[in-house]
Amino acid sequence: MKKWLLTAAAMATSFGAIADEGMWQPYQLPAMADELKAKGLEIDVNSISKLTEFPMNAVISLGGCTASFVSPKGLVVTNHHCAYGSIQYNSTPEKNLLKDGFLAKSFAEELPATPGSRIYVTEAVTNVTSEVKSGQMSKVGNDFYKGIEQKEKALVAECEKEDGYRCKVYSFHGGLEYYLVKQMEIRDVRLTYNPAASVGKYGGDIDNWMWPRHTGDYSFYRAYVGKDGKPADFSKDNVPYEPKSFLKVSAKGVSDGDFVMVAGYPGRTNRYRTANEVENQFEWAYPEGKILRERLIEIIKETAPEGSDERIKYESSIAGLANYAKNFTSMIEFYGKSTMLDDRKGLEQDLANWIKADKKRQAKYGEVLAQLDKLIAKGQQGQERDLLMSYMGYSTMISTADRLYRLANEKTLPDMQREPGYQDRDMTRFTSGMERIERRYAASVDQAMLADLISRYAALPKDQRLPAFDKAFGIKNNFDAVKFNKTLGKMYANTKLSDKETRLAWMDKSVADFKKSKDPFIQYAVATYDERMKREKERKQLAGDLMKVRPQYMDAIIAYNREQGKPVYADANSSLRVTVGNVKGYSPEDGLQAVPFTRLEGILAKDTGVDPFDAPKKQLELIANKQYGDYYVKSLDSVPVNFLSTLDTTGGNSGSPTLNGRAELVGLLFDGVYESIIGDWGYDPDTNRSIQVDSRYMLWVMKYLDHADNLLEEMEIVH
Amino acid sequence: MKKWLLTAAAMATSFGAIADEGMWQPYQLPAMADELKAKGLEIDVNSISKLTEFPMNAVISLGGCTASFVSPKGLVVTNHHCAYGSIQYNSTPEKNLLKDGFLAKSFAEELPATPGSRIYVTEAVTNVTSEVKSGQMSKVGNDFYKGIEQKEKALVAECEKEDGYRCKVYSFHGGLEYYLVKQMEIRDVRLTYNPAASVGKYGGDIDNWMWPRHTGDYSFYRAYVGKDGKPADFSKDNVPYEPKSFLKVSAKGVSDGDFVMVAGYPGRTNRYRTANEVENQFEWAYPEGKILRERLIEIIKETAPEGSDERIKYESSIAGLANYAKNFTSMIEFYGKSTMLDDRKGLEQDLANWIKADKKRQAKYGEVLAQLDKLIAKGQQGQERDLLMSYMGYSTMISTADRLYRLANEKTLPDMQREPGYQDRDMTRFTSGMERIERRYAASVDQAMLADLISRYAALPKDQRLPAFDKAFGIKNNFDAVKFNKTLGKMYANTKLSDKETRLAWMDKSVADFKKSKDPFIQYAVATYDERMKREKERKQLAGDLMKVRPQYMDAIIAYNREQGKPVYADANSSLRVTVGNVKGYSPEDGLQAVPFTRLEGILAKDTGVDPFDAPKKQLELIANKQYGDYYVKSLDSVPVNFLSTLDTTGGNSGSPTLNGRAELVGLLFDGVYESIIGDWGYDPDTNRSIQVDSRYMLWVMKYLDHADNLLEEMEIVH
Repeated sequence: MKKWLLTAAAMATSFGAIADEGMWQPYQLPAMADELKAKGLEIDVNSISKLTEFPMNAVISLGGCTASFVSPKGLVVTNHHCAYGSIQYNSTPEKNLLKDGFLAKSFAEELPATPGSRIYVTEAVTNVTSEVKSGQMSKVGNDFYKGIEQKEKALVAECEKEDGYRCKVYSFHGGLEYYLVKQMEIRDVRLTYNPAASVGKYGGDIDNWMWPRHTGDYSFYRAYVGKDGKPADFSKDNVPYEPKSFLKVSAKGVSDGDFVMVAGYPGRTNRYRTANEVENQFEWAYPEGKILRERLIEIIKETAPEGSDERIKYESSIAGLANYAKNFTSMIEFYGKSTMLDDRKGLEQDLANWIKADKKRQAKYGEVLAQLDKLIAKGQQGQERDLLMSYMGYSTMISTADRLYRLANEKTLPDMQREPGYQDRDMTRFTSGMERIERRYAASVDQAMLADLISRYAALPKDQRLPAFDKAFGIKNNFDAVKFNKTLGKMYANTKLSDKETRLAWMDKSVADFKKSKDPFIQYAVATYDERMKREKERKQLAGDLMKVRPQYMDAIIAYNREQGKPVYADANSSLRVTVGNVKGYSPEDGLQAVPFTRLEGILAKDTGVDPFDAPKKQLELIANKQYGDYYVKSLDSVPVNFLSTLDTTGGNSGSPTLNGRAELVGLLFDGVYESIIGDWGYDPDTNRSIQVDSRYMLWVMKYLDHADNLLEEMEIVH
Repeated sequence: MKKWLLTAAAMATSFGAIADEGMWQPYQLPAMADELKAKGLEIDVNSISKLTEFPMNAVISLGGCTASFVSPKGLVVTNHHCAYGSIQYNSTPEKNLLKDGFLAKSFAEELPATPGSRIYVTEAVTNVTSEVKSGQMSKVGNDFYKGIEQKEKALVAECEKEDGYRCKVYSFHGGLEYYLVKQMEIRDVRLTYNPAASVGKYGGDIDNWMWPRHTGDYSFYRAYVGKDGKPADFSKDNVPYEPKSFLKVSAKGVSDGDFVMVAGYPGRTNRYRTANEVENQFEWAYPEGKILRERLIEIIKETAPEGSDERIKYESSIAGLANYAKNFTSMIEFYGKSTMLDDRKGLEQDLANWIKADKKRQAKYGEVLAQLDKLIAKGQQGQERDLLMSYMGYSTMISTADRLYRLANEKTLPDMQREPGYQDRDMTRFTSGMERIERRYAASVDQAMLADLISRYAALPKDQRLPAFDKAFGIKNNFDAVKFNKTLGKMYANTKLSDKETRLAWMDKSVADFKKSKDPFIQYAVATYDERMKREKERKQLAGDLMKVRPQYMDAIIAYNREQGKPVYADANSSLRVTVGNVKGYSPEDGLQAVPFTRLEGILAKDTGVDPFDAPKKQLELIANKQYGDYYVKSLDSVPVNFLSTLDTTGGNSGSPTLNGRAELVGLLFDGVYESIIGDWGYDPDTNRSIQVDSRYMLWVMKYLDHADNLLEEMEIVH
């Protein structure tokens, strides 16, 4: 599943939640108390609904991943793939933490996480719908969009007045409701322990999104704060953060059929999209995206041969491109096998019939679907071009020049009027982003990718192309790729943006400075700026209109479901959610059953000695000698490694604690199965399965392989 | 599994039979009566042990495949892949029986099977060990070999005096026992019904040896005899054969865990080979064979491009080469994962210890293993060359010239002294073999394959090469492949052996005629004949020695097992065997379970519309509409398609009736799973699984898709 990446991304046979489907906002849970108790929840449902009480105050966000406190001394457990950047950051050829693993035997040995690492502790979630909408509802289009944005910014600014906090307004149901989330932002994060990549990333990209799985995808951080207990920048004087509560870790684990729940920060789902949106996404956007991703991977591999310095810089780009190429491939495959589009059309028809059957409803919702579809169709105009332009963001030179010039322009405005991402509060991130470019940039690769994307763009009909962009790159109807590549080569030869100091210096320059620049990419950014801003305004105009219509559509869906006694959860939006389910296998194809647990022996059977199936020798010996120790499970005649559950999760949930009915940690969620990738568009109880590292495997590795006795002692382990 | 092809081919953790392991000679069954009854056998075990009683007299051989009578009017059911040649033979572009299927609505509409098709009904199996060995035991080497062969030929000749019978002496336990098998040979075989290949070969080569499986691998023949009830050549006046008994077909089928048994003609297993033989086979012979097969496939594909006439002629060669390339790949893979060699060494050590522990045993068996290993090592000398020479048999010109000249030489001897295969009784087959060559021969491909094999041969050290062979092809130490290919090109340009009449004419010519011939391949055969005969004599010398020593080794193994109360079954040798087991799934890898039944819905899910996943539209509609009809199984909520069992089978078992405890036909065995290919060397109860077509799927297709009402009425179906 990997860290949640921003991608535009429901096979629900119903708009309402059924069985284990549903990413619930904590406040919704008490209304489902009886059902939850019957399923196996043992602790008081009211405590889960309160963010400042156990267990919810132990569940934290890393921004893109989820994590949890597992000791009174701020020890944090998350996925190995969520801590990957920090492990890599601290690795050198001499001391390779990725390869060999790392264990701090004392607080003093802990290492600073990668710069910019944060731990967010959610402290308050407030419904601010009325504040956000107040005075805005008479506006339309871009004005409405801007008006809402202004309100959000004001709320955030007010909230962030308290030092050490980060705030954000989240929109639910496409703008039906708004919630202000206040999170303590811990800035001193340290790496405490990670297993070797041959445990933590076992199976690598081959096993990614696959079952059977044998990945020890866990690592430990520690949160540090100033002596006053408040968030502070890294300092030797800082002290471990003492969370209000922490999770106990279960050494007993779960069995087939057991109740489990996950609290975490799922990124994005699309379960209430219209049939037209589904059709366009699966029949156009995913296939096109797959083509572009696969081509960009080819280009990187051709331009930066295996073993070259350039290749090392682009390994993570390849991984990211491949991750979603695989995701899109699955989306397309399972869409082809499903009746999703017909089901969606059927649901829309049911909803339309329900609306038509009542005059009041007709007055309220009668036009909504038609209006929505009209706006959606409008948004799809020119999408071939828009998709290509968005992939041009993979060109570091394009995106860097664009962002720097945008910054100069935004700085002419008062802080509160600036575009999000360009406000003073964003400058730390902006700067570190500009600093980090070197590690992931090679001119040869950047040029080759950009040349390919612009060739595709140049093949579009003239009325789809953008005149200023055409002019900046000298694109005419008869595009000469060879000649163009020479032009591009000169641009890369002459730009200074590949130099870190130069980039940082541009952060402080004026619009006039940019206009005078001879740097070819700065010149490109300046020449196309007005046109890009015009396109952005058009998009916001549309977004504003959608923000008025989609909430009405969602309101109709919620009313329709309420009549049938079904609660409705909002699409995932990176905010804190709870999902409940059971440990359960599934049938990946007729004649085969995925059983819910894998075992240590599966590692022996998979191991080839070659990455990514190269478990540590010591581990293979322990398994061959059946050294199960304290974590032997009789029914499996082994130690469980990973397990499957029906939990409804998506990217962003990575690292989430999987809890039993007593809210003890029984696993760490780290992936979903291949068949459930399409689950972002609709939960299928037959095939939607999340994959967890079993807590018993984590404890087994810690005790017998890595001898992390200090941490085992620090945590509260329930036997 | 495909038809059993002759290839040199035990992960048994024991030399003796355990659990469901064992391919039993029918006479061995009564001794196991209690165990069989406990497992689920309901009919009298004594009846199974008698070949002339139900159900054994209903089980017949097609030569390479097994079949069974399923009506009083000689209706025969076997696998689609066993009847494939006959279906292909009767197909034309206008009337494509392979593609569209075929159903004779009356006896008159039935079509003659491919020329040479036979049905063999086993009528007697007689232990002739003493007759065969009488007067031979003082001989050694080639003399012993020839002496045994003479005895066998005499027994066969005596047995075949009765018109309409075919007899053969089978050696068991490497020559410890000999049995004379007398079979009625039915020569008028007709095709009655076959489903479309998109049912009967569903999944094709992709699914071959794989689970999950959805293949309707069944077809129907009918046996005809003369009005006198005796075997006769095809004639319109012939009448359907009335078998002494026939199998009832179960419409109720089996469930998970049920008892099943199979009677059939398994081809060859190697479960009592020594550790040295195992090591050589898996570490040298299979890897080398895989390389040669994969290279020959490449050569065919390069020389005969897809769509060419030549390619059509070689499709079945490609299939055969690929079938065993896949087989060898699995052998190598699972050998690498297994402890087979160590286990085998351990067993040999146990046996040696047991022998050493007793003076009598020591006297009797003390030297046997050492002697055996010495002979085995001798047989491996020059095996690189011998393997290449055997693959040269894939060159039609080489094998045709060799066989024709051999025939001329053999004919100078009295019939009884000729090599088996060159006696008068073999001439019908010999002739049809010579006639059929056109359909499978293209000079370009034949030359390319031979050139590759001879290049490899030429790279062998000189002392391994054969002087006359070198001379015939002008091979010297510095082999020039390009020049050689020109020489070969001239040979193919000048030979007349590609002409059918020419080949048939050579069958009647004398040795002197051959010696005068200017045909380059005849000249090759003549020039190398003496040398090849010398090599053959050396091999027979060794075979004779092995035929004296291996029986002693097997005698030791049998005695060792008898002491532990374990019966010992002989390696498969194409003679009639019975194996018992249960319907049961298995775990192909940790975290996955193969469940024992596939369902109709699996066909819908697999179907791509493209061969080999292109089920008939009508079938897909029936499934989509859940038209399960009479064969609905509640526990599966569908109709079962294929099922798994623990039955111990191998190639040659194809088409065997799978029977329930009452000896009703519940399925047709047609394959084994990929993990059990290595089972030819040792039965592993965890992974050895046979694959059957479920009788309910066969009946469902017959009734609802193909409307074979006449056959459904003719058979006795048990509900």
